[in-house]
Amino acid sequence: MNYDVVIIGGNPAGGAAAVSAKMLHKDKSILIIKKEPVSLVPCGIPYTFGTLNKVEDNQIDPERMKQGGINVLIGEVTVIDSVNKQLSLKNSELVSYDKLIVATGSVPFVPPIPGVDLEGVVTIRKEMEYIKAIQPQLKQGKNIVVVGAGFIGVEMSDELSKVCKNVTLIESMDSILPLAFDEEVVESAARVLQNHGVNIRTNTLVDKIVGENGKVSAVKLKDGEEIKADQVILAIGYRSNVSLAKECGINIGIYGGIITDDYMRTNIKDIFAVGDCVEHRDYFTNKQSKLMLASTAASEARVAGMNLFDLRIIRQTKGSIAIFSTSLDDISMGAAGLTEKQAKAEGFRIIVGVHSGVDHHPAILPDTSKQIVKLIFSEGSGVIIGAQIVGGVSTGEMINMLGLAIQKNMTASELALMQYGTQPKLTAGPTAYPIALAAMKAVHKIYEYNSCIL
Amino acid sequence: MNYDVVIIGGNPAGGAAAVSAKMLHKDKSILIIKKEPVSLVPCGIPYTFGTLNKVEDNQIDPERMKQGGINVLIGEVTVIDSVNKQLSLKNSELVSYDKLIVATGSVPFVPPIPGVDLEGVVTIRKEMEYIKAIQPQLKQGKNIVVVGAGFIGVEMSDELSKVCKNVTLIESMDSILPLAFDEEVVESAARVLQNHGVNIRTNTLVDKIVGENGKVSAVKLKDGEEIKADQVILAIGYRSNVSLAKECGINIGIYGGIITDDYMRTNIKDIFAVGDCVEHRDYFTNKQSKLMLASTAASEARVAGMNLFDLRIIRQTKGSIAIFSTSLDDISMGAAGLTEKQAKAEGFRIIVGVHSGVDHHPAILPDTSKQIVKLIFSEGSGVIIGAQIVGGVSTGEMINMLGLAIQKNMTASELALMQYGTQPKLTAGPTAYPIALAAMKAVHKIYEYNSCIL
Repeated sequence: MNYDVVIIGGNPAGGAAAVSAKMLHKDKSILIIKKEPVSLVPCGIPYTFGTLNKVEDNQIDPERMKQGGINVLIGEVTVIDSVNKQLSLKNSELVSYDKLIVATGSVPFVPPIPGVDLEGVVTIRKEMEYIKAIQPQLKQGKNIVVVGAGFIGVEMSDELSKVCKNVTLIESMDSILPLAFDEEVVESAARVLQNHGVNIRTNTLVDKIVGENGKVSAVKLKDGEEIKADQVILAIGYRSNVSLAKECGINIGIYGGIITDDYMRTNIKDIFAVGDCVEHRDYFTNKQSKLMLASTAASEARVAGMNLFDLRIIRQTKGSIAIFSTSLDDISMGAAGLTEKQAKAEGFRIIVGVHSGVDHHPAILPDTSKQIVKLIFSEGSGVIIGAQIVGGVSTGEMINMLGLAIQKNMTASELALMQYGTQPKLTAGPTAYPIALAAMKAVHKIYEYNSCIL
Repeated sequence: MNYDVVIIGGNPAGGAAAVSAKMLHKDKSILIIKKEPVSLVPCGIPYTFGTLNKVEDNQIDPERMKQGGINVLIGEVTVIDSVNKQLSLKNSELVSYDKLIVATGSVPFVPPIPGVDLEGVVTIRKEMEYIKAIQPQLKQGKNIVVVGAGFIGVEMSDELSKVCKNVTLIESMDSILPLAFDEEVVESAARVLQNHGVNIRTNTLVDKIVGENGKVSAVKLKDGEEIKADQVILAIGYRSNVSLAKECGINIGIYGGIITDDYMRTNIKDIFAVGDCVEHRDYFTNKQSKLMLASTAASEARVAGMNLFDLRIIRQTKGSIAIFSTSLDDISMGAAGLTEKQAKAEGFRIIVGVHSGVDHHPAILPDTSKQIVKLIFSEGSGVIIGAQIVGGVSTGEMINMLGLAIQKNMTASELALMQYGTQPKLTAGPTAYPIALAAMKAVHKIYEYNSCIL
């Protein structure tokens, strides 16, 4: 078999690369090689445990790619031969490529502590068959411990609290979602999670997982306490899946991801890499970054897909901004860029503007939610470097707007005077628009600060 | 009485000017002079006819200004004496100012056709007592005709359809909301309105309003047809309220609004004007514009309030972009910048990208809405000049994001590769994010176009 473009991996990164490659290169033949016939919506996986009825509700329509003129092969690549531009498959088939995109994704990180291989200890792998296999026992769990309060850990805890009475969420840092939110912002979300029945334990370190007859029975903490558990979910991050790439000589970075240039090209000619298997760079410092996000993957996939044969579209935003959002039904949260804590740890001098209000106007309208917007600016440049929102269901798109503001290096004064639309049932009021007001408060601080030194 | 800053008008423009003036100038005394003790949330007025129980539910807390250290005087200014920097009030009081901000707003336009003064013919004035007076009879109307399918007309029709069986909405142009949306985009919203029981009549011109014994009985159309009516709402726009300003020699523009510079300064020293009483300029052509929006007013108010004594904050977005949104409960719509029709009428060569999808992922999740995003780009520059969205409740903030993209002159390729966050319950999926995909389709068209001429 011989294709112009071959993509290894059919999750968001691989799929988006295929679609954008096909859109800009109609005459090229494109093949995706993936292990499972049906892919899951990765960020939808937690919702298959509560909100949705079954794992199949969360699948990506397997016909979509074929309809778009993209070929799909179910199989496993075992060797990349970059000299002959040929892939070997497990079933001994050979596939030749002109351009290759590696989109092999990531696998859950399993910490090196005793007990992780006991029955009842699971991770959240982005694979249909695996999730289908672990779901029944998790849903019937009596005492569930979730280790790690990132987005997966928080969403899994919230969903499982709908079907299980006793869910404990363990986090080693000060607060839940510590990489996305400052403590005081995420406080109200933690209270909602507690009201849903989740027992939150922050500043808590796991010593080991304890078992009886090969089955998990408890999680032992560093302080000696034991938390009873018949199911344990390890949700402490993912690692790039790069074994194939490594073997064929592709350069790997300090965090174990594939090193690429701005156009997702690896060190080997005609081999690109996109998504979780890539070592990203931080937007603010250009340092290597551990961040993995499906939306970042999709954006990189478009960069690669559109630029496979010649550089057609310049890439203007080079590092990853980290734009997140989540929803616990009655409260939603979004974050973009650096938190106040991260910015300070990174050495930035900052100015913060916060505004609290409501997301409809007047506030008596149905479905009105409280809304807090926290903006973080570089003190000397006035440029936005971080944003956090707690609010209603508009939070997801509102944080995307602030992500865009970060990408365009907008200043506090620009945001204070920005144009926007308001509507009673959809947004805060015209004079109370929280982004403009939080920015205005930051501008005001710059003035107060200046009057001190004058 | 003597104040550093006096503001005539206490609606969004006046209120926002006062708050931002106070924030950046703590030591200055500020007075708002307004006619009614209690102001209404202007865009909330339609909702007092259905969704909300009473007009008072839609008031702006009258204590808020006072708590912020802003003085409020209930009264009516009759003369601006710009030489002595003094205002005369109806009750003969005099108020001196150092800086004056005129925020006298707008009044509904009443067309010069017979019958507009009949009993039962009303406009939507932004005044508490007026709305309280007209509301009971409107709610008891049996046959209501709304003239003008702009935002007020559409929202009033939708709300009144909740309490009245027979509502007819008349529009002279091809489709509802013609200044914000292209016909094919707004189609689904028109269907929702019809399902709510509103009888839509587009391409329909009113000849006159017919009465019996001084009361309205019908609306006669240009084609001779008569539509039975016991209540008629005229919703065909507003006109700047500038009589005070005109008399004191402030320059007025071709559409009847006050002419200001970028910092909202009029031709008379120390007199500023903000909001609906100002003649705005169009962002794309710099032509005078009839556009009036509370959010534009609030933004101008901040420009004035922060720059009253010295130019502290430069204004980077000079013209009005026109960012709108509205919601008919089960469908929401947003628009920013030029429609395709307007862009062509203005002479722009354009490229359009459209993407249809859903606003949650997977689509089986509760509250998932269909979502259409239409983006309009300048063909030669690739810069975004218009956006339209039909979708769910995230539409309001999503159109604000596209408003920001317009303010930053973003290109199709930048938007195609933009970074964003996605979340199952809050946004479309990572590979199906509609702004990126609509932009990618536009980029693709640019390529197809180029291959034609090469």
